[in-house]
Amino acid sequence: MIKLEQSGKKIEELDFSEIDKRNEAICKTIDDKTGAGNDFLGWLDYESKFPEAEIERLVKCAKRIRKDYDALAVVGIGGSYLGARAAIDAINGLFPDDDFKIIFLGNTLSSTYTKQALNYLKNKKFAINVISKSGTTVEPSVAFRLLKDILVEKYGEEYLKDAVVATTDRARGALKKEAGEAGYETFVIPDDIGGRFSVITPVGLLPIACAGIDVKEFIRGVKSGEKEYSAPDYKKNPAYMYGAKRYLMYKTGFPVEVFTTYEPQFASINEWLKQLFAESEGKDSKGLFPASVTLTTDLHSVGQFLQSGSPILFETIIKTDSPIDDLTVKEDEKNLDGLNYLAGRKLSYINDQAYAGTLKAHTETGPVSANVIHVEKMTPYNLGNLFYFFMRACAYSAYLLGVNPFNQPGVEVYKKNMFKLLGKPGIK
Amino acid sequence: MIKLEQSGKKIEELDFSEIDKRNEAICKTIDDKTGAGNDFLGWLDYESKFPEAEIERLVKCAKRIRKDYDALAVVGIGGSYLGARAAIDAINGLFPDDDFKIIFLGNTLSSTYTKQALNYLKNKKFAINVISKSGTTVEPSVAFRLLKDILVEKYGEEYLKDAVVATTDRARGALKKEAGEAGYETFVIPDDIGGRFSVITPVGLLPIACAGIDVKEFIRGVKSGEKEYSAPDYKKNPAYMYGAKRYLMYKTGFPVEVFTTYEPQFASINEWLKQLFAESEGKDSKGLFPASVTLTTDLHSVGQFLQSGSPILFETIIKTDSPIDDLTVKEDEKNLDGLNYLAGRKLSYINDQAYAGTLKAHTETGPVSANVIHVEKMTPYNLGNLFYFFMRACAYSAYLLGVNPFNQPGVEVYKKNMFKLLGKPGIK
Repeated sequence: MIKLEQSGKKIEELDFSEIDKRNEAICKTIDDKTGAGNDFLGWLDYESKFPEAEIERLVKCAKRIRKDYDALAVVGIGGSYLGARAAIDAINGLFPDDDFKIIFLGNTLSSTYTKQALNYLKNKKFAINVISKSGTTVEPSVAFRLLKDILVEKYGEEYLKDAVVATTDRARGALKKEAGEAGYETFVIPDDIGGRFSVITPVGLLPIACAGIDVKEFIRGVKSGEKEYSAPDYKKNPAYMYGAKRYLMYKTGFPVEVFTTYEPQFASINEWLKQLFAESEGKDSKGLFPASVTLTTDLHSVGQFLQSGSPILFETIIKTDSPIDDLTVKEDEKNLDGLNYLAGRKLSYINDQAYAGTLKAHTETGPVSANVIHVEKMTPYNLGNLFYFFMRACAYSAYLLGVNPFNQPGVEVYKKNMFKLLGKPGIK
Repeated sequence: MIKLEQSGKKIEELDFSEIDKRNEAICKTIDDKTGAGNDFLGWLDYESKFPEAEIERLVKCAKRIRKDYDALAVVGIGGSYLGARAAIDAINGLFPDDDFKIIFLGNTLSSTYTKQALNYLKNKKFAINVISKSGTTVEPSVAFRLLKDILVEKYGEEYLKDAVVATTDRARGALKKEAGEAGYETFVIPDDIGGRFSVITPVGLLPIACAGIDVKEFIRGVKSGEKEYSAPDYKKNPAYMYGAKRYLMYKTGFPVEVFTTYEPQFASINEWLKQLFAESEGKDSKGLFPASVTLTTDLHSVGQFLQSGSPILFETIIKTDSPIDDLTVKEDEKNLDGLNYLAGRKLSYINDQAYAGTLKAHTETGPVSANVIHVEKMTPYNLGNLFYFFMRACAYSAYLLGVNPFNQPGVEVYKKNMFKLLGKPGIK
C-alpha cells in the first residue's frame, strides 16, 4: 500500500552494513517473540485472530450509540485516546459533516478544559466510552466520575447501564468490576498489547466506529499490513527499511525526527506517532526525540529553522497522493492578488507543488534529509495499513537501538511523586 | 507580573560569565536599535504609542462584527494568526461558551481542511478579517478568494463592503488597493514590526476583540511588560534572565527547548512561541529547536522520553497558579476506582500536584532542567504581559546567539521552488 521514498544527502549516504549484520537476528526476535517485552507482541496478528462475532458486536454497539445519543465522551489517556482521535480526525476531518459529536475527556487534569467540556456535553444527550485497563488511572477516573454525575443527576442511576460502554481488562480491575455490577456493555483490552499499539483493538475501534467510520475496512487494512510488513528482511519490508533508516539517522547524529504532514487533519496522526516512538524508544538515555509540524502552515513558523537552523533533525513525511475533498481556484476579474495564474487549478494540486517545492528546498538547499511515506488516499483501509506499518517499524528500530520497545518504566516516576503529594493511601 | 523559577542541576550550574561580559552591549543593541534587523524593533514601545482613537475604532469594529454576524473567518498565516489564536484559546478555552464563532483559514493549502471549513461557514452569517501585509501570500489569498465567492454568490458584491475588514499595509500592496476600491474598513500592520511580533498590533488585536476579549486590558498588560522587562541588566530583568538561560542551555549541549503547559487551552501559546523562537533564531545553522507538550496528557505519550530518553532537551513551563474555571471531585459510595482520597479536592489542586510531582521527577530523577514561568492567572492583562516578556527574551537570546532576530530569509526558499512549479509569471 505504502511507497517509501527518501530525499537528501545524509539519508542517501547511509551505511547499512550494521543493519545487514543484525537484520536476521532482529527479525527473529520479533517473529519468534524472544526479545525484551515479548509478552506484548499480541498486536502482530491480533486483527487476523479477532473473532468475527466480536467485530459484529462492536459495530452493533456503535450503531446503537449513534442512534440513541447525540454525542460520545471518549474517556481515556495516552494510547486510550490517541489512536482513535488520529483516525477520526484523519478520516472525518476537523469540521466533520456529522451531527454526532465525539469529545475526548479524561486525558488532562486541567479544571478549565474539563469544566468547559462538561458544560458542552450537559446540553447534549451523550453516551460514555470509558477506556482503562485498571480503571484507576487518575485522569480518566476523575472524568468518568464527573460524567456519570451529570447523567445520574439528570436521569438516575439506571440510565448508566445503556449509556456507558467500558473497554477494559478481560477479568480483573476496578472498571471491569463496576461494569459487571452496573451492567455496562464491555469490550476487552488484550493483556498482550500495550496502550500505544491498541488502536487496532476495541480501544480504538469502538470510538472510530462511533464516528461513523467503516471499521471493517480499517481492520481489513490492518490485516493487509500484517502480510505486507512481515518479511524478515529490511530490503523487502518497507516498515523495516524505514525503521532501519531512522535508527541510522539517529546514529549519524540527528537526534530529532520531525513528523510532517501537509493536511491539518493528519496532525493527530503525528501525535499518535509521538507516543508510539517516544514511549517505545525514549529510555536508557537513548532515542530519537519525536516532534511534528503541519505544512505549509508551519513553514511560516518553524520553517525558517527547518531550512537554516541547527542541523539536528530529519523529516518523516506522510504524503497522501489524493485528497479526501477538493476545490478549484476561480478566475478573478481584477486579479489584484495576482493569483489568476492559479485559476482553474485544484487546491490539492497547489498543495502538491508546495510539498514538492518544500522537499527540494529542505533537502537540496537546506541540511534536511527526509523519509516520504506515500499513501494513495487516507481511507479507513489505508489508515489501518499505515498504523500497522509504523508499529512494525517501531519494533524493528527499538530493537536495533537495544531497548525494550514495549515497556514504559519512566511513566511511573511522576505518578509516584504525584500520589505522595496527593496523600494517596499506601504510597510512601 | 511573572515569577521566574528554575529546577534541575544543569540549569542551576550554568556559568554566566559570558553573559556578564556581553550583557551591556546586547542591551544597548536592543535599546539603541543598533543591531541587525534594527528597523523591526517597533514592537518595543508600540503599545505605548498606539493612539487611543485607533484602539476605540478597533473595539467599535469588533463590536459591530459580533453584533451583525454569527462568525468571523480570520484569514492569515504565520504571525497573522498564531498570536490571535493563542490568545483566544488561552482566554476563552477550547469549548467557549460563546455563540459567536472564530474560524482560522488561509493558513494551509489543504483542500480537505479548506473545503470543510468553508462548508461549515456557508451555513453561518460570517464576516472576514483578512490579514496580510502584501495581499499576495498564496495561502491567505486563495482562502480570501474562496470566502468572498461564497458571500458574493449569496448576497452580491456590495455585501463585502461591511463584511470584510482588512489588516494590511498602511499605503501599499494588493490588499490595501482592494480595500480602497471596495470600501473595506482597514487596520494597519506597521512597517517596523514583523509577523511574529504582531499580536500586539491590530493583526492580533482585532480577532482577539472579536472573540469578546477585553483588548484594552490586554494592551494594558503589554504596556506593563514594556516597563517590567526593559531593565538593561539580565539580573534585574526576568525576560533577559530567561533569554540568557536558554542561550546557555543551548551552548551547554541541549539543542531542544520543550515548551510545556498543564492546560490544553494554552497549547496554542506554545505554537506561537515556536514561531517566535524558530524564526528568530533558526538561521546560520544555529538555534534551539522548539517543541511542545501538553501535560499531564503527554506524560502518557512523550513522558517516557522526557524522563529517561536522550538527554538533549530542557523544558520551559508556563504555569498558571489560578485556573480560569474549576470543579470538585465528589465522594463515591462504592469507591471502586479508589479515588475517594481525592473527594472534596479541586481538580486544579490535583493538577498542581501533578505539576509538582512531574517537575521533581524530570529534574531530580531524570536528566531534565526546567525554566518555570509563573503567571498568576491567564487574564487578558497577564497574557499581554507574557507575550511582551517572550518578545524581549527572544531579542536578547537571538543577539546572544549572534543572529538577526528579525529576518526570516529561509522562508523564501520553498516559496521560490513552489512558484516555479506552479508556473507563476516572472519566476525562473
